Amino acid sequence: MKAVIIGCFGHYGYIWNGMKKYGVELAAVTEGVRYDPNIYSPEIYSSDDYIKILDEIKPDIAVICDIFSRNSEIAVSAIEHGCHVFLEKPAATDFDKLNSLKKISNKNPQLKICPMFGIRYESHFVTAKRLVDEGVIGNIRLINAQKSYKMGSRPEFYRKRQTYGGIIPWVAIHAIDWVHWFSNSKFLSVTALHSCRENFNHGEMETTSFSLFNMKNEIIASVSADMLRPSDASSHDDDRIRIVGTDGIIEIINKRVFLTGAGKTGTDEINLDSPHDIFCDMLEQIINGTNSDLTAENAFYITEAALNARLSADTNQTVYFN
Amino acid sequence: MKAVIIGCFGHYGYIWNGMKKYGVELAAVTEGVRYDPNIYSPEIYSSDDYIKILDEIKPDIAVICDIFSRNSEIAVSAIEHGCHVFLEKPAATDFDKLNSLKKISNKNPQLKICPMFGIRYESHFVTAKRLVDEGVIGNIRLINAQKSYKMGSRPEFYRKRQTYGGIIPWVAIHAIDWVHWFSNSKFLSVTALHSCRENFNHGEMETTSFSLFNMKNEIIASVSADMLRPSDASSHDDDRIRIVGTDGIIEIINKRVFLTGAGKTGTDEINLDSPHDIFCDMLEQIINGTNSDLTAENAFYITEAALNARLSADTNQTVYFN
Repeated sequence: MKAVIIGCFGHYGYIWNGMKKYGVELAAVTEGVRYDPNIYSPEIYSSDDYIKILDEIKPDIAVICDIFSRNSEIAVSAIEHGCHVFLEKPAATDFDKLNSLKKISNKNPQLKICPMFGIRYESHFVTAKRLVDEGVIGNIRLINAQKSYKMGSRPEFYRKRQTYGGIIPWVAIHAIDWVHWFSNSKFLSVTALHSCRENFNHGEMETTSFSLFNMKNEIIASVSADMLRPSDASSHDDDRIRIVGTDGIIEIINKRVFLTGAGKTGTDEINLDSPHDIFCDMLEQIINGTNSDLTAENAFYITEAALNARLSADTNQTVYFN
Repeated sequence: MKAVIIGCFGHYGYIWNGMKKYGVELAAVTEGVRYDPNIYSPEIYSSDDYIKILDEIKPDIAVICDIFSRNSEIAVSAIEHGCHVFLEKPAATDFDKLNSLKKISNKNPQLKICPMFGIRYESHFVTAKRLVDEGVIGNIRLINAQKSYKMGSRPEFYRKRQTYGGIIPWVAIHAIDWVHWFSNSKFLSVTALHSCRENFNHGEMETTSFSLFNMKNEIIASVSADMLRPSDASSHDDDRIRIVGTDGIIEIINKRVFLTGAGKTGTDEINLDSPHDIFCDMLEQIINGTNSDLTAENAFYITEAALNARLSADTNQTVYFN
């Protein structure tokens, strides 16, 4: 199989293990993409020439992580060219683009579109998910999730809503994915707030946001996302989730997993399972027809949820899901 | 000075230090109130006879913590009898009762009404508040607060909205107070959810809730409150707050205070200041005319915020503050 990388802004680093394990050729990349020249010798293109790449290279897989607002259009072209797509989240930065992508995807169900929800594959998330699926905390009733990033100095395209998309589709979306993934429940409505005050000269980029989801069966899910993690903090991100069930509470904090209740006294730190690999998951879907939670449907549903949350914050109105 | 305790359901335990320090006499209590018989020998009344207590004892201070829905009416009577009031939160369980209490309080501004927001006086909150007021984390942009209690088996009156008031006015209200106290900002609107699913046969009592506040200057404040802390957890409550500023983040968790940023590398645990005493605060207001954040205005404003949040959750609508 042949893969190409289009765009150098996202998480294409997720692919290297899978590329190696399954002997996938890296046939082309766009300028700015970093790869190991001892292993790969791809053709180099400008990212504006993505159609040329698809025409000339005829890849099996397109790894797409360009300026966020361009990714869905590139994905549409890739699918038209018969490629599977490993796609940076959000799948699209507005509803029209999302619908265009959905339409072409529905016409080509044999082509995989896998979103780059890579955090789910880290040990602490794998472990927490296993415990939840084993029923250790009973029925989930409340989930509080958090994303907090260092702002640093972001590229110019982050400073415009049109090219960036917003903090909710770019940052909060991971946690929106988590609350859906852990609860296996549907979103009914969302009320959200965001603010670009005190954004250290980042134009239209939001600094803070909060999304409150009403989910099926009266499950409550909250997602806090901000760019105010101090620059001297010990890590770039401060991902957290607190999953409150009828029999116990599972929390992820500092990449560690804690379980309270579930028949035991106090709070236990849980030994971590091995991490999974997101791109191997995708390749195994393609090669072996393996079932996975990482699907086009998932990419579209979570993107829709993020765009609904952003719409709520923009309009100061609760947005109801279809 | 003479004090009486009317009702045995709330936090009248807050008074003992202050009673001793300022030599306040405990002249009467209602049935069920626990006190040290080596120190006090109060008259004992039925809580239904609260007017009789006020008539006969003529106390200077009424400590009121009866069934939650009755507290505001008892407070109105106490003020009519010329008493200062140390009042269990919420100040009232509906808007009509709150307005009645406000009206009589406005006519008697010389009488103090202090709400039982005792958690603010604990070391960890005192410490965090000092740091915030010193400007250590810069301008506050986002606050995430949490209350989580063990459900246990609650008295009958918790099982009816009419007598209990709800999880937001009873539990979340503390955290609503915190976000206002730390931010010194005004509430503009609130969107809330609550659910009484899986409440272990507690009738109408809610199990989970979430309140999202839009505050002045685009400050975002969120309050999660639930009754699902496992029975075998190491403490009854799991109070937390995360205060995100432009220069750093302060967190309270497990009664400890952590500071990230603010010019230092990583996250530091902060040595705790001494606790303050809520009833001493009230007595010093009465005796010395000391200024305090614990006022009738505070009691009414936070109660209004809690009732607005409950209204939002009941009606599935965002509620705007006057």
